[in-house]
Amino acid sequence: MSHFQPADSQWESRVRASFERIGIMKTLGARLGALEPGKAEILLDFHEGLSQQRGYFHAGVTSTIADSAGGLAAYSLFPADRAVLSVEFKVNMLNPADGACLRAVGEVLKLGRTLSVCEIQVYSQRQDEERLCAKMQQTLFQVAAVS
Amino acid sequence: MSHFQPADSQWESRVRASFERIGIMKTLGARLGALEPGKAEILLDFHEGLSQQRGYFHAGVTSTIADSAGGLAAYSLFPADRAVLSVEFKVNMLNPADGACLRAVGEVLKLGRTLSVCEIQVYSQRQDEERLCAKMQQTLFQVAAVS
Amino acid sequence: MSHFQPADSQWESRVRASFERIGIMKTLGARLGALEPGKAEILLDFHEGLSQQRGYFHAGVTSTIADSAGGLAAYSLFPADRAVLSVEFKVNMLNPADGACLRAVGEVLKLGRTLSVCEIQVYSQRQDEERLCAKMQQTLFQVAAVS
Amino acid sequence: MSHFQPADSQWESRVRASFERIGIMKTLGARLGALEPGKAEILLDFHEGLSQQRGYFHAGVTSTIADSAGGLAAYSLFPADRAVLSVEFKVNMLNPADGACLRAVGEVLKLGRTLSVCEIQVYSQRQDEERLCAKMQQTLFQVAAVS
Repeated sequence: MSHFQPADSQWESRVRASFERIGIMKTLGARLGALEPGKAEILLDFHEGLSQQRGYFHAGVTSTIADSAGGLAAYSLFPADRAVLSVEFKVNMLNPADGACLRAVGEVLKLGRTLSVCEIQVYSQRQDEERLCAKMQQTLFQVAAVS
Repeated sequence: MSHFQPADSQWESRVRASFERIGIMKTLGARLGALEPGKAEILLDFHEGLSQQRGYFHAGVTSTIADSAGGLAAYSLFPADRAVLSVEFKVNMLNPADGACLRAVGEVLKLGRTLSVCEIQVYSQRQDEERLCAKMQQTLFQVAAVS
Repeated sequence: MSHFQPADSQWESRVRASFERIGIMKTLGARLGALEPGKAEILLDFHEGLSQQRGYFHAGVTSTIADSAGGLAAYSLFPADRAVLSVEFKVNMLNPADGACLRAVGEVLKLGRTLSVCEIQVYSQRQDEERLCAKMQQTLFQVAAVS
Repeated sequence: MSHFQPADSQWESRVRASFERIGIMKTLGARLGALEPGKAEILLDFHEGLSQQRGYFHAGVTSTIADSAGGLAAYSLFPADRAVLSVEFKVNMLNPADGACLRAVGEVLKLGRTLSVCEIQVYSQRQDEERLCAKMQQTLFQVAAVS
Protein backbone atom coordinates (compact mmCIF):
# COMPACT_ATOMS: atom_id res chain seq x y z
CA MET A 1 0.00 0.00 0.00
CA SER A 2 1.03 3.54 -0.75
CA HIS A 3 2.26 5.71 2.13
CA PHE A 4 0.88 8.96 0.68
CA GLN A 5 -2.03 10.90 2.14
CA PRO A 6 -4.21 12.47 -0.58
CA ALA A 7 -4.84 16.22 -0.12
CA ASP A 8 -8.38 15.85 -1.47
CA SER A 9 -10.81 13.21 -0.19
CA GLN A 10 -12.44 13.08 -3.64
CA TRP A 11 -9.12 12.13 -5.26
CA GLU A 12 -10.35 8.93 -6.84
CA SER A 13 -13.33 10.38 -8.71
CA ARG A 14 -11.14 13.32 -9.72
CA VAL A 15 -8.54 10.96 -11.22
CA ARG A 16 -11.23 8.96 -13.04
CA ALA A 17 -12.76 12.14 -14.49
CA SER A 18 -9.32 13.34 -15.57
CA PHE A 19 -8.61 10.09 -17.39
CA GLU A 20 -11.91 10.46 -19.29
CA ARG A 21 -10.77 13.83 -20.63
CA ILE A 22 -7.60 12.39 -22.25
CA GLY A 23 -8.59 12.06 -25.91
CA ILE A 24 -5.66 9.84 -26.91
CA MET A 25 -6.65 7.20 -24.33
CA LYS A 26 -9.90 6.55 -26.24
CA THR A 27 -8.08 6.57 -29.57
CA LEU A 28 -5.65 3.92 -28.34
CA GLY A 29 -8.27 1.92 -26.47
CA ALA A 30 -6.57 2.32 -23.06
CA ARG A 31 -8.47 1.82 -19.82
CA LEU A 32 -7.85 2.86 -16.25
CA GLY A 33 -6.83 0.09 -13.83
CA ALA A 34 -6.20 0.09 -10.08
CA LEU A 35 -5.79 3.38 -8.22
CA GLU A 36 -4.21 4.27 -4.89
CA PRO A 37 -3.08 7.63 -3.55
CA GLY A 38 0.16 8.28 -5.45
CA LYS A 39 -0.28 5.30 -7.77
CA ALA A 40 -2.19 4.71 -11.02
CA GLU A 41 -2.45 1.87 -13.51
CA ILE A 42 -3.38 1.98 -17.22
CA LEU A 43 -4.09 -1.09 -19.35
CA LEU A 44 -3.95 -1.42 -23.12
CA ASP A 45 -4.80 -4.41 -25.31
CA PHE A 46 -2.79 -4.92 -28.47
CA HIS A 47 -4.20 -4.28 -31.92
CA GLU A 48 -2.50 -3.64 -35.30
CA GLY A 49 -3.13 0.09 -35.03
CA LEU A 50 -0.71 0.37 -32.08
CA SER A 51 2.29 -1.27 -33.72
CA GLN A 52 5.76 -0.35 -34.91
CA GLN A 53 7.33 -2.01 -37.98
CA ARG A 54 7.78 -5.44 -36.37
CA GLY A 55 4.24 -5.73 -35.09
CA TYR A 56 4.99 -4.98 -31.40
CA PHE A 57 3.61 -2.06 -29.41
CA HIS A 58 5.29 1.14 -30.69
CA ALA A 59 7.66 2.71 -28.12
CA GLY A 60 5.62 5.92 -28.38
CA VAL A 61 2.43 4.06 -27.45
CA THR A 62 4.19 2.46 -24.48
CA SER A 63 5.37 5.95 -23.50
CA THR A 64 1.93 7.49 -23.91
CA ILE A 65 0.27 5.22 -21.35
CA ALA A 66 3.35 5.44 -19.08
CA ASP A 67 3.26 9.25 -19.22
CA SER A 68 -0.44 9.33 -18.27
CA ALA A 69 -0.01 6.68 -15.54
CA GLY A 70 2.68 8.88 -13.96
CA GLY A 71 0.68 12.06 -14.44
CA LEU A 72 -2.42 10.57 -12.78
CA ALA A 73 -0.35 9.12 -9.91
CA ALA A 74 0.90 12.62 -9.08
CA TYR A 75 -2.50 14.22 -9.74
CA SER A 76 -4.11 11.91 -7.18
CA LEU A 77 -2.12 13.69 -4.46
CA PHE A 78 -2.78 17.25 -5.62
CA PRO A 79 -5.32 19.61 -4.03
CA ALA A 80 -8.65 19.72 -5.88
CA ASP A 81 -7.94 22.98 -7.71
CA ARG A 82 -4.66 21.87 -9.28
CA ALA A 83 -3.75 20.22 -12.58
CA VAL A 84 -0.68 18.35 -13.83
CA LEU A 85 1.60 18.94 -16.82
CA SER A 86 4.47 16.76 -18.06
CA VAL A 87 7.78 18.62 -17.98
CA GLU A 88 9.94 15.81 -19.37
CA PHE A 89 10.41 12.08 -19.26
CA LYS A 90 12.97 9.44 -20.16
CA VAL A 91 12.08 5.87 -21.00
CA ASN A 92 14.17 2.73 -21.54
CA MET A 93 12.80 -0.14 -23.58
CA LEU A 94 14.02 -3.20 -21.65
CA ASN A 95 12.35 -6.05 -23.52
CA PRO A 96 10.22 -6.28 -26.68
CA ALA A 97 6.68 -4.99 -26.01
CA ASP A 98 5.22 -8.01 -27.75
CA GLY A 99 2.45 -9.28 -25.50
CA ALA A 100 -1.34 -9.19 -25.79
CA CYS A 101 -1.63 -6.39 -23.25
CA LEU A 102 0.47 -3.65 -21.68
CA ARG A 103 0.11 -2.64 -18.03
CA ALA A 104 1.66 0.69 -16.99
CA VAL A 105 2.03 1.37 -13.26
CA GLY A 106 2.94 4.92 -12.25
CA GLU A 107 4.18 5.76 -8.76
CA VAL A 108 5.18 9.03 -7.12
CA LEU A 109 8.83 9.08 -6.08
CA LYS A 110 8.84 12.68 -4.85
CA LEU A 111 5.87 14.99 -4.33
CA GLY A 112 6.82 18.67 -4.43
CA ARG A 113 4.86 21.91 -4.30
CA THR A 114 5.87 22.78 -7.87
CA LEU A 115 7.66 19.73 -9.28
CA SER A 116 7.01 16.06 -8.67
CA VAL A 117 8.90 13.02 -9.92
CA CYS A 118 7.33 9.68 -10.82
CA GLU A 119 8.65 6.40 -12.00
CA ILE A 120 6.58 4.16 -14.22
CA GLN A 121 7.01 0.50 -14.97
CA VAL A 122 5.36 -0.99 -18.04
CA TYR A 123 4.74 -4.74 -18.15
CA SER A 124 3.90 -6.76 -21.21
CA GLN A 125 1.42 -9.55 -20.50
CA ARG A 126 1.19 -12.79 -22.44
CA GLN A 127 -0.99 -15.67 -21.27
CA ASP A 128 -0.05 -16.16 -17.62
CA GLU A 129 3.25 -14.33 -17.82
CA GLU A 130 4.16 -10.72 -17.22
CA ARG A 131 7.52 -9.12 -18.04
CA LEU A 132 8.92 -5.65 -17.45
CA CYS A 133 9.25 -4.13 -20.92
CA ALA A 134 9.82 -0.42 -20.21
CA LYS A 135 10.80 1.89 -17.37
CA MET A 136 10.17 5.63 -17.32
CA GLN A 137 11.44 8.44 -15.06
CA GLN A 138 9.27 11.56 -15.32
CA THR A 139 9.10 15.15 -14.04
CA LEU A 140 5.70 16.81 -13.56
CA PHE A 141 4.58 20.39 -12.93
CA GLN A 142 1.69 21.35 -10.66
CA VAL A 143 -0.39 24.21 -12.10
CA ALA A 144 -3.70 25.90 -11.35
CA ALA A 145 -6.59 23.97 -12.92
CA VAL A 146 -8.48 25.76 -15.67
CA SER A 147 -12.16 26.07 -14.79
CA MET B 1 21.81 19.71 -46.49
CA SER B 2 22.83 16.63 -44.58
CA HIS B 3 26.48 15.56 -44.70
CA PHE B 4 25.72 11.84 -44.48
CA GLN B 5 26.22 9.35 -47.30
CA PRO B 6 23.50 6.68 -47.34
CA ALA B 7 24.83 3.10 -47.43
CA ASP B 8 21.95 2.00 -49.69
CA SER B 9 21.02 3.90 -52.86
CA GLN B 10 17.38 2.83 -52.38
CA TRP B 11 17.27 4.50 -48.95
CA GLU B 12 14.33 6.78 -49.72
CA SER B 13 11.91 4.10 -50.91
CA ARG B 14 13.06 1.90 -48.03
CA VAL B 15 12.24 4.68 -45.50
CA ARG B 16 8.83 5.30 -47.12
CA ALA B 17 7.99 1.58 -47.02
CA SER B 18 9.08 1.40 -43.38
CA PHE B 19 6.82 4.32 -42.44
CA GLU B 20 3.87 2.52 -44.07
CA ARG B 21 4.40 -0.48 -41.79
CA ILE B 22 4.06 1.59 -38.57
CA GLY B 23 0.46 0.91 -37.51
CA ILE B 24 0.26 3.73 -34.96
CA MET B 25 1.06 6.33 -37.64
CA LYS B 26 -2.22 5.51 -39.43
CA THR B 27 -4.13 5.47 -36.14
CA LEU B 28 -2.86 8.96 -35.27
CA GLY B 29 -3.19 10.29 -38.83
CA ALA B 30 0.53 11.11 -39.16
CA ARG B 31 2.17 11.55 -42.56
CA LEU B 32 5.74 11.46 -43.75
CA GLY B 33 7.29 14.81 -44.73
CA ALA B 34 10.66 15.72 -46.20
CA LEU B 35 13.48 13.15 -46.24
CA GLU B 36 17.24 13.47 -46.56
CA PRO B 37 19.98 10.98 -45.73
CA GLY B 38 20.12 11.10 -41.91
CA LYS B 39 17.02 13.28 -41.59
CA ALA B 40 13.27 12.58 -41.52
CA GLU B 41 10.16 14.67 -40.94
CA ILE B 42 6.71 13.57 -39.71
CA LEU B 43 3.62 15.79 -39.73
CA LEU B 44 0.46 15.42 -37.65
CA ASP B 45 -2.72 17.52 -37.75
CA PHE B 46 -4.57 18.07 -34.50
CA HIS B 47 -7.86 16.36 -33.67
CA GLU B 48 -9.63 15.69 -30.37
CA GLY B 49 -8.48 12.09 -30.34
CA LEU B 50 -4.84 13.17 -29.87
CA SER B 51 -5.35 15.36 -26.82
CA GLN B 52 -4.42 15.44 -23.17
CA GLN B 53 -6.78 16.92 -20.54
CA ARG B 54 -6.38 20.55 -21.67
CA GLY B 55 -7.04 19.90 -25.34
CA TYR B 56 -3.42 20.12 -26.53
CA PHE B 57 -1.46 17.33 -28.18
CA HIS B 58 -0.67 14.69 -25.54
CA ALA B 59 3.05 14.49 -24.66
CA GLY B 60 2.94 10.81 -25.60
CA VAL B 61 1.64 11.65 -29.07
CA THR B 62 4.37 14.26 -29.51
CA SER B 63 6.87 11.60 -28.41
CA THR B 64 5.46 8.97 -30.75
CA ILE B 65 6.04 11.00 -33.91
CA ALA B 66 9.41 12.23 -32.54
CA ASP B 67 10.51 8.65 -31.83
CA SER B 68 9.63 7.53 -35.37
CA ALA B 69 11.20 10.64 -36.96
CA GLY B 70 14.46 9.79 -35.17
CA GLY B 71 14.19 6.09 -35.99
CA LEU B 72 13.64 6.75 -39.70
CA ALA B 73 16.47 9.32 -39.80
CA ALA B 74 18.89 6.63 -38.57
CA TYR B 75 17.30 3.92 -40.71
CA SER B 76 17.91 6.01 -43.85
CA LEU B 77 21.66 5.51 -43.31
CA PHE B 78 21.58 1.78 -42.59
CA PRO B 79 22.50 -0.95 -45.10
CA ALA B 80 19.46 -2.47 -46.82
CA ASP B 81 19.36 -5.60 -44.66
CA ARG B 82 19.20 -3.79 -41.31
CA ALA B 83 16.36 -2.58 -39.11
CA VAL B 84 16.12 -0.08 -36.27
CA LEU B 85 14.92 -0.43 -32.67
CA SER B 86 14.49 2.31 -30.05
CA VAL B 87 16.70 1.69 -27.02
CA GLU B 88 15.62 4.73 -25.02
CA PHE B 89 14.70 8.37 -25.39
CA LYS B 90 14.26 11.48 -23.29
CA VAL B 91 11.98 14.35 -24.23
CA ASN B 92 11.47 17.85 -22.79
CA MET B 93 8.20 19.68 -23.36
CA LEU B 94 9.37 23.26 -23.97
CA ASN B 95 6.11 25.01 -24.89
CA PRO B 96 2.46 23.92 -24.99
CA ALA B 97 1.81 21.69 -28.02
CA ASP B 98 -1.30 23.69 -28.85
CA GLY B 99 -1.13 24.38 -32.57
CA ALA B 100 -3.08 22.99 -35.53
CA CYS B 101 -0.20 20.77 -36.61
CA LEU B 102 2.97 19.22 -35.20
CA ARG B 103 6.13 18.84 -37.27
CA ALA B 104 8.79 16.46 -35.92
CA VAL B 105 12.26 16.64 -37.48
CA GLY B 106 14.68 13.85 -36.60
CA GLU B 107 18.42 14.12 -37.30
CA VAL B 108 21.29 11.73 -36.74
CA LEU B 109 23.86 13.08 -34.30
CA LYS B 110 26.04 9.97 -34.27
CA LEU B 111 25.87 6.96 -36.55
CA GLY B 112 27.43 3.86 -35.04
CA ARG B 113 27.71 0.24 -36.13
CA THR B 114 25.52 -0.91 -33.24
CA LEU B 115 24.17 2.24 -31.56
CA SER B 116 23.17 5.54 -33.10
CA VAL B 117 22.00 8.74 -31.43
CA CYS B 118 19.44 11.14 -32.87
CA GLU B 119 17.99 14.41 -31.76
CA ILE B 120 14.48 15.38 -32.70
CA GLN B 121 12.86 18.79 -32.64
CA VAL B 122 9.08 19.04 -32.62
CA TYR B 123 7.48 22.29 -33.77
CA SER B 124 3.90 23.32 -33.21
CA GLN B 125 2.43 25.22 -36.15
CA ARG B 126 -0.36 27.76 -35.91
CA GLN B 127 -1.32 29.92 -38.88
CA ASP B 128 1.95 31.38 -40.14
CA GLU B 129 3.91 30.74 -36.97
CA GLU B 130 6.02 27.82 -35.86
CA ARG B 131 7.39 27.29 -32.37
CA LEU B 132 9.69 24.64 -30.88
CA CYS B 133 7.48 22.70 -28.46
CA ALA B 134 9.54 19.58 -27.67
CA LYS B 135 13.07 18.28 -27.97
CA MET B 136 14.08 14.62 -27.81
CA GLN B 137 17.44 12.86 -27.45
CA GLN B 138 17.25 9.22 -28.52
CA THR B 139 19.41 6.07 -28.68
CA LEU B 140 18.77 3.50 -31.42
CA PHE B 141 19.97 -0.06 -32.03
CA GLN B 142 20.83 -1.48 -35.45
CA VAL B 143 19.62 -5.08 -35.86
CA ALA B 144 19.28 -7.58 -38.68
CA ALA B 145 16.02 -7.04 -40.57
CA VAL B 146 13.48 -9.87 -40.33
CA SER B 147 12.67 -11.25 -43.75
CA MET C 1 19.42 -10.50 -1.82
CA SER C 2 20.00 -10.19 -5.51
CA HIS C 3 18.55 -12.86 -7.81
CA PHE C 4 21.40 -12.67 -10.33
CA GLN C 5 23.97 -15.42 -10.87
CA PRO C 6 27.43 -13.99 -11.63
CA ALA C 7 29.04 -15.41 -14.78
CA ASP C 8 32.48 -15.30 -13.16
CA SER C 9 33.16 -16.73 -9.69
CA GLN C 10 35.88 -14.08 -9.16
CA TRP C 11 33.35 -11.28 -9.72
CA GLU C 12 33.93 -9.56 -6.37
CA SER C 13 37.71 -9.18 -6.66
CA ARG C 14 37.23 -8.13 -10.28
CA VAL C 15 34.80 -5.38 -9.23
CA ARG C 16 37.15 -4.20 -6.46
CA ALA C 17 40.11 -4.05 -8.87
CA SER C 18 37.99 -2.15 -11.40
CA PHE C 19 37.00 0.45 -8.81
CA GLU C 20 40.70 0.99 -7.98
CA ARG C 21 41.40 1.89 -11.60
CA ILE C 22 38.83 4.76 -11.65
CA GLY C 23 41.00 7.85 -11.17
CA ILE C 24 38.14 10.23 -10.38
CA MET C 25 37.08 8.07 -7.38
CA LYS C 26 40.38 8.86 -5.64
CA THR C 27 40.14 12.54 -6.60
CA LEU C 28 36.68 12.78 -5.05
CA GLY C 29 37.51 10.60 -2.06
CA ALA C 30 34.85 7.97 -2.87
CA ARG C 31 35.05 4.46 -1.45
CA LEU C 32 33.44 1.19 -2.41
CA GLY C 33 30.68 -0.11 -0.13
CA ALA C 34 28.66 -3.33 -0.12
CA LEU C 35 28.69 -5.59 -3.18
CA GLU C 36 26.34 -8.29 -4.40
CA PRO C 37 25.98 -9.85 -7.84
CA GLY C 38 24.19 -7.15 -9.85
CA LYS C 39 24.46 -4.54 -7.09
CA ALA C 40 27.17 -2.08 -6.01
CA GLU C 41 27.41 0.71 -3.45
CA ILE C 42 29.71 3.76 -3.44
CA LEU C 43 30.11 6.12 -0.47
CA LEU C 44 31.37 9.70 -0.48
CA ASP C 45 31.93 12.05 2.47
CA PHE C 46 31.28 15.73 1.94
CA HIS C 47 34.06 18.30 1.68
CA GLU C 48 34.15 21.81 0.20
CA GLY C 49 35.86 20.57 -2.95
CA LEU C 50 32.72 18.63 -3.97
CA SER C 51 30.25 21.49 -3.75
CA GLN C 52 28.07 23.57 -6.04
CA GLN C 53 27.37 27.27 -5.33
CA ARG C 54 25.18 26.65 -2.27
CA GLY C 55 27.59 24.34 -0.52
CA TYR C 56 25.77 21.07 -1.26
CA PHE C 57 27.16 18.17 -3.28
CA HIS C 58 27.32 19.22 -6.95
CA ALA C 59 24.81 17.35 -9.16
CA GLY C 60 27.74 16.22 -11.31
CA VAL C 61 29.46 14.67 -8.29
CA THR C 62 26.26 12.89 -7.33
CA SER C 63 26.04 11.65 -10.93
CA THR C 64 29.67 10.53 -11.00
CA ILE C 65 29.32 8.10 -8.11
CA ALA C 66 25.88 7.02 -9.38
CA ASP C 67 27.30 6.31 -12.84
CA SER C 68 30.10 4.17 -11.41
CA ALA C 69 27.76 2.37 -8.98
CA GLY C 70 25.57 1.38 -11.93
CA GLY C 71 28.56 0.46 -14.09
CA LEU C 72 30.06 -1.79 -11.40
CA ALA C 73 26.67 -3.40 -10.70
CA ALA C 74 26.46 -4.49 -14.35
CA TYR C 75 30.17 -5.36 -14.52
CA SER C 76 29.75 -7.77 -11.59
CA LEU C 77 27.58 -9.96 -13.84
CA PHE C 78 29.81 -9.89 -16.92
CA PRO C 79 32.16 -12.71 -17.98
CA ALA C 80 35.77 -12.15 -16.88
CA ASP C 81 36.99 -10.93 -20.28
CA ARG C 82 34.43 -8.13 -20.64
CA ALA C 83 34.39 -4.45 -19.71
CA VAL C 84 31.62 -1.87 -19.28
CA LEU C 85 31.06 1.52 -20.93
CA SER C 86 28.35 4.09 -20.13
CA VAL C 87 26.12 4.74 -23.15
CA GLU C 88 23.88 7.35 -21.51
CA PHE C 89 22.16 8.19 -18.26
CA LYS C 90 19.44 10.43 -16.91
CA VAL C 91 19.31 11.66 -13.33
CA ASN C 92 16.67 13.51 -11.32
CA MET C 93 17.67 15.53 -8.26
CA LEU C 94 14.84 14.81 -5.82
CA ASN C 95 16.02 16.55 -2.66
CA PRO C 96 19.01 18.77 -1.83
CA ALA C 97 22.20 16.69 -1.59
CA ASP C 98 23.10 18.42 1.65
CA GLY C 99 24.15 15.69 4.05
CA ALA C 100 27.54 14.67 5.45
CA CYS C 101 27.75 11.65 3.15
CA LEU C 102 26.25 10.33 -0.08
CA ARG C 103 25.47 6.67 -0.62
CA ALA C 104 24.87 5.53 -4.22
CA VAL C 105 23.32 2.11 -4.75
CA GLY C 106 23.33 0.74 -8.30
CA GLU C 107 21.20 -2.23 -9.33
CA VAL C 108 20.82 -4.08 -12.62
CA LEU C 109 17.30 -3.82 -14.03
CA LYS C 110 18.03 -5.69 -17.25
CA LEU C 111 21.15 -7.65 -18.17
CA GLY C 112 21.61 -8.03 -21.92
CA ARG C 113 24.33 -9.47 -24.11
CA THR C 114 25.18 -6.05 -25.54
CA LEU C 115 23.18 -3.50 -23.55
CA SER C 116 22.25 -3.51 -19.87
CA VAL C 117 20.09 -1.08 -17.92
CA CYS C 118 20.66 -0.08 -14.31
CA GLU C 119 18.88 2.14 -11.88
CA ILE C 120 20.76 3.93 -9.17
CA GLN C 121 19.45 5.53 -6.01
CA VAL C 122 21.57 8.10 -4.21
CA TYR C 123 20.85 8.78 -0.54
CA SER C 124 22.08 11.73 1.45
CA GLN C 125 22.98 10.82 5.03
CA ARG C 126 22.87 13.19 7.96
CA GLN C 127 23.26 11.99 11.53
CA ASP C 128 20.87 9.05 11.83
CA GLU C 129 18.73 9.98 8.87
CA GLU C 130 18.94 8.98 5.24
CA ARG C 131 16.96 10.55 2.42
CA LEU C 132 16.70 9.73 -1.30
CA CYS C 133 18.30 12.72 -3.06
CA ALA C 134 18.77 11.49 -6.63
CA LYS C 135 17.64 8.73 -8.95
CA MET C 136 19.41 7.68 -12.13
CA GLN C 137 18.39 5.45 -15.05
CA GLN C 138 21.39 4.30 -17.07
CA THR C 139 22.27 2.31 -20.22
CA LEU C 140 25.55 0.37 -20.38
CA PHE C 141 27.48 -1.35 -23.16
CA GLN C 142 29.37 -4.61 -22.76
CA VAL C 143 32.69 -4.59 -24.65
CA ALA C 144 35.79 -6.76 -24.85
CA ALA C 145 38.21 -5.91 -22.06
CA VAL C 146 41.53 -4.40 -23.13
CA SER C 147 44.44 -6.52 -21.98
CA MET D 1 25.72 35.43 -31.51
CA SER D 2 23.06 34.68 -28.95
CA HIS D 3 19.60 36.23 -29.43
CA PHE D 4 18.91 36.55 -25.69
CA GLN D 5 18.77 39.84 -23.80
CA PRO D 6 20.22 39.50 -20.28
CA ALA D 7 17.87 40.79 -17.53
CA ASP D 8 20.84 42.10 -15.55
CA SER D 9 23.53 44.30 -17.12
CA GLN D 10 26.08 42.85 -14.66
CA TRP D 11 25.40 39.32 -15.93
CA GLU D 12 28.99 38.56 -16.90
CA SER D 13 30.62 39.39 -13.58
CA ARG D 14 27.76 37.60 -11.84
CA VAL D 15 28.41 34.42 -13.89
CA ARG D 16 32.16 34.63 -13.22
CA ALA D 17 31.58 35.02 -9.47
CA SER D 18 29.16 32.08 -9.50
CA PHE D 19 31.71 29.84 -11.22
CA GLU D 20 34.26 30.71 -8.52
CA ARG D 21 31.89 29.43 -5.83
CA ILE D 22 31.63 25.94 -7.38
CA GLY D 23 34.04 23.89 -5.28
CA ILE D 24 34.17 20.89 -7.62
CA MET D 25 35.44 23.07 -10.50
CA LYS D 26 38.66 23.77 -8.56
CA THR D 27 38.97 20.10 -7.56
CA LEU D 28 38.73 19.02 -11.21
CA GLY D 29 40.87 21.87 -12.52
CA ALA D 30 38.11 23.29 -14.76
CA ARG D 31 38.20 26.88 -16.02
CA LEU D 32 35.59 29.19 -17.43
CA GLY D 33 35.78 29.92 -21.18
CA ALA D 34 33.79 32.21 -23.45
CA LEU D 35 30.52 33.73 -22.20
CA GLU D 36 27.54 35.26 -23.99
CA PRO D 37 24.04 35.92 -22.74
CA GLY D 38 22.45 32.45 -22.65
CA LYS D 39 25.71 30.65 -23.40
CA ALA D 40 28.65 29.48 -21.28
CA GLU D 41 31.80 27.44 -21.93
CA ILE D 42 33.87 25.37 -19.49
CA LEU D 43 37.28 23.88 -20.30
CA LEU D 44 39.03 20.98 -18.59
CA ASP D 45 42.50 19.54 -19.26
CA PHE D 46 42.99 15.82 -18.82
CA HIS D 47 44.90 14.33 -15.91
CA GLU D 48 44.89 10.82 -14.40
CA GLY D 49 42.65 11.93 -11.56
CA LEU D 50 39.72 12.51 -13.95
CA SER D 51 39.70 9.08 -15.56
CA GLN D 52 37.51 6.01 -15.76
CA GLN D 53 38.99 2.51 -16.01
CA ARG D 54 40.33 2.91 -19.58
CA GLY D 55 42.10 6.18 -18.96
CA TYR D 56 39.57 8.45 -20.67
CA PHE D 57 37.60 11.23 -18.99
CA HIS D 58 34.98 9.62 -16.70
CA ALA D 59 31.40 10.12 -17.92
CA GLY D 60 30.60 11.74 -14.56
CA VAL D 61 33.37 14.30 -15.05
CA THR D 62 32.10 15.07 -18.54
CA SER D 63 28.62 15.46 -17.02
CA THR D 64 29.86 17.69 -14.20
CA ILE D 65 31.29 20.35 -16.49
CA ALA D 66 28.30 19.99 -18.86
CA ASP D 67 25.86 20.46 -15.95
CA SER D 68 27.63 23.64 -14.82
CA ALA D 69 27.97 24.99 -18.38
CA GLY D 70 24.19 24.65 -18.78
CA GLY D 71 23.48 26.07 -15.34
CA LEU D 72 25.65 29.15 -15.97
CA ALA D 73 24.13 29.66 -19.44
CA ALA D 74 20.66 29.91 -17.86
CA TYR D 75 21.94 31.90 -14.88
CA SER D 76 23.37 34.54 -17.24
CA LEU D 77 19.79 35.43 -18.23
CA PHE D 78 18.31 35.52 -14.72
CA PRO D 79 17.58 38.71 -12.75
CA ALA D 80 20.32 39.58 -10.27
CA ASP D 81 18.49 38.23 -7.22
CA ARG D 82 17.94 34.73 -8.59
CA ALA D 83 19.91 31.48 -8.45
CA VAL D 84 19.85 28.26 -10.48
CA LEU D 85 19.34 24.62 -9.44
CA SER D 86 19.60 21.51 -11.60
CA VAL D 87 16.32 19.60 -11.71
CA GLU D 88 17.48 16.76 -13.95
CA PHE D 89 19.64 16.02 -16.94
CA LYS D 90 20.25 13.31 -19.50
CA VAL D 91 23.53 12.80 -21.28
CA ASN D 92 24.60 10.58 -24.19
CA MET D 93 28.23 9.61 -24.62
CA LEU D 94 28.71 9.79 -28.41
CA ASN D 95 32.44 9.17 -28.78
CA PRO D 96 35.23 8.25 -26.35
CA ALA D 97 36.22 11.28 -24.26
CA ASP D 98 39.87 10.57 -24.92
CA GLY D 99 41.43 13.89 -25.84
CA ALA D 100 43.80 16.22 -24.00
CA CYS D 101 41.02 18.67 -23.16
CA LEU D 102 37.22 18.78 -22.88
CA ARG D 103 35.20 21.81 -23.93
CA ALA D 104 31.59 22.00 -22.72
CA VAL D 105 29.30 24.56 -24.35
CA GLY D 106 25.94 25.17 -22.68
CA GLU D 107 23.12 27.02 -24.45
CA VAL D 108 19.63 27.99 -23.36
CA LEU D 109 16.94 26.32 -25.45
CA LYS D 110 13.99 27.70 -23.47
CA LEU D 111 14.03 30.36 -20.76
CA GLY D 112 11.03 30.16 -18.45
CA ARG D 113 10.00 32.00 -15.32
CA THR D 114 10.35 28.84 -13.21
CA LEU D 115 11.90 26.20 -15.46
CA SER D 116 14.50 26.58 -18.19
CA VAL D 117 15.92 23.99 -20.56
CA CYS D 118 19.49 23.92 -21.84
CA GLU D 119 21.41 21.73 -24.19
CA ILE D 120 25.09 21.19 -23.76
CA GLN D 121 27.62 19.87 -26.23
CA VAL D 122 30.92 18.52 -24.97
CA TYR D 123 33.84 18.34 -27.40
CA SER D 124 37.03 16.40 -26.90
CA GLN D 125 40.09 18.20 -28.25
CA ARG D 126 43.25 16.51 -29.48
CA GLN D 127 45.98 18.44 -31.28
CA ASP D 128 44.15 20.41 -33.98
CA GLU D 129 41.03 18.29 -33.96
CA GLU D 130 37.80 18.61 -32.02
CA ARG D 131 35.07 15.97 -31.86
CA LEU D 132 31.62 15.95 -30.23
CA CYS D 133 31.90 13.39 -27.42
CA ALA D 134 28.76 14.03 -25.34
CA LYS D 135 25.41 15.78 -25.55
CA MET D 136 23.26 16.73 -22.59
CA GLN D 137 19.65 17.91 -22.29
CA GLN D 138 18.99 19.60 -18.93
CA THR D 139 16.14 21.14 -16.90
CA LEU D 140 16.89 23.98 -14.47
CA PHE D 141 14.90 25.69 -11.72
CA GLN D 142 15.04 29.41 -10.98
CA VAL D 143 14.99 30.13 -7.23
CA ALA D 144 15.54 33.12 -4.99
CA ALA D 145 19.25 33.64 -4.31
CA VAL D 146 20.38 33.14 -0.73
CA SER D 147 21.98 36.28 0.64
